[in-house]
Amino acid sequence: MRLPGESVEYLLDHWPVARLATLRRDGMPHQVPIVFARHAGRLWSPIDGKPKSERELARVRHLAGDPRAGLLLDDYAEDWTALWWLRLDGRARALRPRGAELDAVAAALRAKYPQYARVPLFQDEPTLIEFRIETRRSWCASGNAAPRP
Amino acid sequence: MRLPGESVEYLLDHWPVARLATLRRDGMPHQVPIVFARHAGRLWSPIDGKPKSERELARVRHLAGDPRAGLLLDDYAEDWTALWWLRLDGRARALRPRGAELDAVAAALRAKYPQYARVPLFQDEPTLIEFRIETRRSWCASGNAAPRP
Repeated sequence: MRLPGESVEYLLDHWPVARLATLRRDGMPHQVPIVFARHAGRLWSPIDGKPKSERELARVRHLAGDPRAGLLLDDYAEDWTALWWLRLDGRARALRPRGAELDAVAAALRAKYPQYARVPLFQDEPTLIEFRIETRRSWCASGNAAPRP
Repeated sequence: MRLPGESVEYLLDHWPVARLATLRRDGMPHQVPIVFARHAGRLWSPIDGKPKSERELARVRHLAGDPRAGLLLDDYAEDWTALWWLRLDGRARALRPRGAELDAVAAALRAKYPQYARVPLFQDEPTLIEFRIETRRSWCASGNAAPRP
């Protein structure tokens, strides 16, 4: 069964982590966990100050070559009647917003993640991945599984 | 920094969930959470009796068209110094093993997941996704982040 609409909206605003899938230049899929916040109907993930495995991030390089991307939100539980997932297909790109848009996105991220009081929200120039949702698909194992406010 | 080798081995044997990325026919990435067990150097994920959103699973259809696949293991934590991920690239296919191989894979899955005492391990004919690891890449935020036995 599908997640109810209220659960999907709740997850888009409040779920702390998603797995971003992008495409390598050779077409191979590539996944990485990301944090994100919703603003103006899109999901925004900062290139933040958490330690990174490389300076030019693979996700940014991949999206420059092919904007097609997916996001998966889910939560594993030992109780398998509590399982659910929400999959978003869309297009994403690395952006350097400025002015009011940057302020609004940064405020949404800081409100969602108190960790940014200590971890830098950006590295040098503020850079974010902007994900535009094109399709949503969801599943849950039972009526009890759907996350709710 | 990378996860130490002992953590990687521990995760491959004991971590309960991974996100499987496959490629749709149009090349778009597609993600779904899976359970899995390691046997004979490969990772095996059953098409089990958990409720499914469709009868012919997208993951099986995708792998028939393109075997390239990825697995992501990670664990979100509010303490960002505890973050880590392990990414496996490889090739996968849907298989119907028989005899001793089927018995060994089924035993590994039942030993890892006591849930299979109640949830059917297979639907009709025993079918599994076999994932062959080609490359491993990992990251952790700090020396305290690496999961250990």
